[in-house]
Amino acid sequence: MRILILGGDGYLGWPTGMHLSQRGHDVALLDNFSKRDWEAEVGGGPLIPVCKLDERVRAWQEITGKKLKVFSGDLREYEFVHETLEDFAPDAIVHYGEQPSAPYSMMDPDHAVFSQVNNVVGTLHVLWAMKRAAPECHLVKLGTLGEYGTPNIDIEEGFLEVEHKGRKDRIPFPKQPGSFYHLSKVHDSHNIQFACRIWKLASTDLNQGVVYGIETEESKLDPRLETSFHYDAIFGTALNRFCVQAIAGVPLTIYGKGAQKRGFLNIRDTLRCVELALTNPAKPGEFRVFNQFTEIFSIAQLAEMVAQQAQKLGFAVKIDHLPNPRIEMEEHYYNVVHDHLLDLGLQPRYLSDELIGSMLKKIAEARGRIRMEMILPQVSWSSGARESGERERVVTSTGGR
Amino acid sequence: MRILILGGDGYLGWPTGMHLSQRGHDVALLDNFSKRDWEAEVGGGPLIPVCKLDERVRAWQEITGKKLKVFSGDLREYEFVHETLEDFAPDAIVHYGEQPSAPYSMMDPDHAVFSQVNNVVGTLHVLWAMKRAAPECHLVKLGTLGEYGTPNIDIEEGFLEVEHKGRKDRIPFPKQPGSFYHLSKVHDSHNIQFACRIWKLASTDLNQGVVYGIETEESKLDPRLETSFHYDAIFGTALNRFCVQAIAGVPLTIYGKGAQKRGFLNIRDTLRCVELALTNPAKPGEFRVFNQFTEIFSIAQLAEMVAQQAQKLGFAVKIDHLPNPRIEMEEHYYNVVHDHLLDLGLQPRYLSDELIGSMLKKIAEARGRIRMEMILPQVSWSSGARESGERERVVTSTGGR
Repeated sequence: MRILILGGDGYLGWPTGMHLSQRGHDVALLDNFSKRDWEAEVGGGPLIPVCKLDERVRAWQEITGKKLKVFSGDLREYEFVHETLEDFAPDAIVHYGEQPSAPYSMMDPDHAVFSQVNNVVGTLHVLWAMKRAAPECHLVKLGTLGEYGTPNIDIEEGFLEVEHKGRKDRIPFPKQPGSFYHLSKVHDSHNIQFACRIWKLASTDLNQGVVYGIETEESKLDPRLETSFHYDAIFGTALNRFCVQAIAGVPLTIYGKGAQKRGFLNIRDTLRCVELALTNPAKPGEFRVFNQFTEIFSIAQLAEMVAQQAQKLGFAVKIDHLPNPRIEMEEHYYNVVHDHLLDLGLQPRYLSDELIGSMLKKIAEARGRIRMEMILPQVSWSSGARESGERERVVTSTGGR
Repeated sequence: MRILILGGDGYLGWPTGMHLSQRGHDVALLDNFSKRDWEAEVGGGPLIPVCKLDERVRAWQEITGKKLKVFSGDLREYEFVHETLEDFAPDAIVHYGEQPSAPYSMMDPDHAVFSQVNNVVGTLHVLWAMKRAAPECHLVKLGTLGEYGTPNIDIEEGFLEVEHKGRKDRIPFPKQPGSFYHLSKVHDSHNIQFACRIWKLASTDLNQGVVYGIETEESKLDPRLETSFHYDAIFGTALNRFCVQAIAGVPLTIYGKGAQKRGFLNIRDTLRCVELALTNPAKPGEFRVFNQFTEIFSIAQLAEMVAQQAQKLGFAVKIDHLPNPRIEMEEHYYNVVHDHLLDLGLQPRYLSDELIGSMLKKIAEARGRIRMEMILPQVSWSSGARESGERERVVTSTGGR
């Protein structure tokens, strides 16, 4: 299968590319490398040094003998997207190519607008280019569980069967997202669903939980194949950041009660889920939604698990409850259906003490590179980005990015 | 009340401004006049000559003694929006300031992207500027009934009470819009609802039906106060265009069966509905939705009514069924709740033979200005904008704009 990965330089895009290449697919990676600029802008950067994409691609070929094609360019330029689809003629596109941070989108009007325009325009261009240059191509789009918010009913996989005033329908599951970033994904989903309906495109929308983990089978093969591991307040995710806080010897920071529940999954399961969606594609005209996660934890549970493992390794760990910088429900019902990927054969790797232990050990090796100021919280949902002077006890993101 | 009207130069914005000014409110009009550029781009333009905004404002003051303030600028420039809100300090904002055409948004990738970016960014800037400069202001946002699509259940006013697997919730009514333009309004609604939730802003989302009519109480006072009446395939709406076709002596063009049902209202009821929303504002943190229309007609019914009145006036009228350029259901269930505005006191002016007759007479006076090539259809949902050579039997928009 010819597979084009949008955002192929990223935390998930790069290991997905290697995973699919290893399984014999013909893989191309597209990126404009702007995530690296956003990291620099907010004073961030990955914990473990990451090679440039062309070096990674060379290393991959050297180690496995397999080639990865690279398209350098911006999804916001229609001609580039169109020409890439004509040139590579993909059977499937995996779309990770978006600004992925909720706090980044909440900093100020410019960052809110940038996040929505960047994500929505990129996806619109992909849809038009598919219609014109690759109408049979299957679009596997990464969304987020955060699109749903926390309704008081079970969250279904994209659609809800309703009976209302004696009539029945199957309607899109309503979305109540929690940041301008999450909203950009909701906008994407609406645009994609429409394009599938009118142009008979095929798409799978993966509403993914919070991903944790550093290593995959392929990234372990060589240090040059490492993926970018983020622990900062803007681009880091909950479990990853807790592990870094534990090793750094600072308190794990929970927002409010920490009873907020979220869906989580191992980075290796992300790769497997995407592969399952690709090898069991949507039909022409079909817009289907998979809820992609393996377990639900509260933030407090997660912090407790990290703290226990860190203590076993001899690190003294404290957990702090801080005022919540996000505006979200801290105690809520949360039951999310996630049958589709299991039905396709996903065998979840549940979060284990071993996994946390191995993450902690790997982070400990890079301990000298941890920059404490990056863990400091920077963005509040009510007041936007703080000036550096105001940062003392402002807090970072809890759940998804 | 101090009221800022975004899109104050438009078909609805200008008469809304006069209507509210006449009732003693302190009104300011904001516009960047780009609608006039879009009309020129697609070869359109209003049937009856329309004065420039500053001439209209001078005429209004001359006739009524009342002042209208003008802010010339673009909602896509945050500083301009912020400064306008600081300067005028509105109690309420009426937001018509968007690209309003579905066919325009379906022409090609550039027009789809332009429509969504223009509308979504403008509204995001309004929300951020409200939060920072006018947090008590009430945002009255014009959406469209087309956001809902045509589900198989009754369409409620923005929210749906559901019982699902033994649990209950009130969830946003799911949207299944029919063009990239309609999608831009859905994106807006999600962004506004979020801003109300986290920043305690107050907003009323008016999901409006298709507006018809040329005259209002105020526009009749002087020819310089006329509003822009569009009949072209891109910016014209169904009833308005049928009337022009009847006078021009060309067939009224119905797409497919014409059994598509839509909600309609008189332009004078638009002004009254907006006024009712303003004088009965949403509360801080409240996002409420009114379905704003007075009657449901099928497109075929509407054409038949116009044909009958035109025949009475001595015009021979034919109705043509053409292949549908839109991708939409032509036979569908359609029952839309619209209680909120009636509860606030709206007394509908139902579509009457007299109204159609008076529209036809007014159009007949301007008959010499009708440009036939503008009624020719230009955009198909499946293949985008046609080259001029291909236009023969391609069809225009039926329902909403």
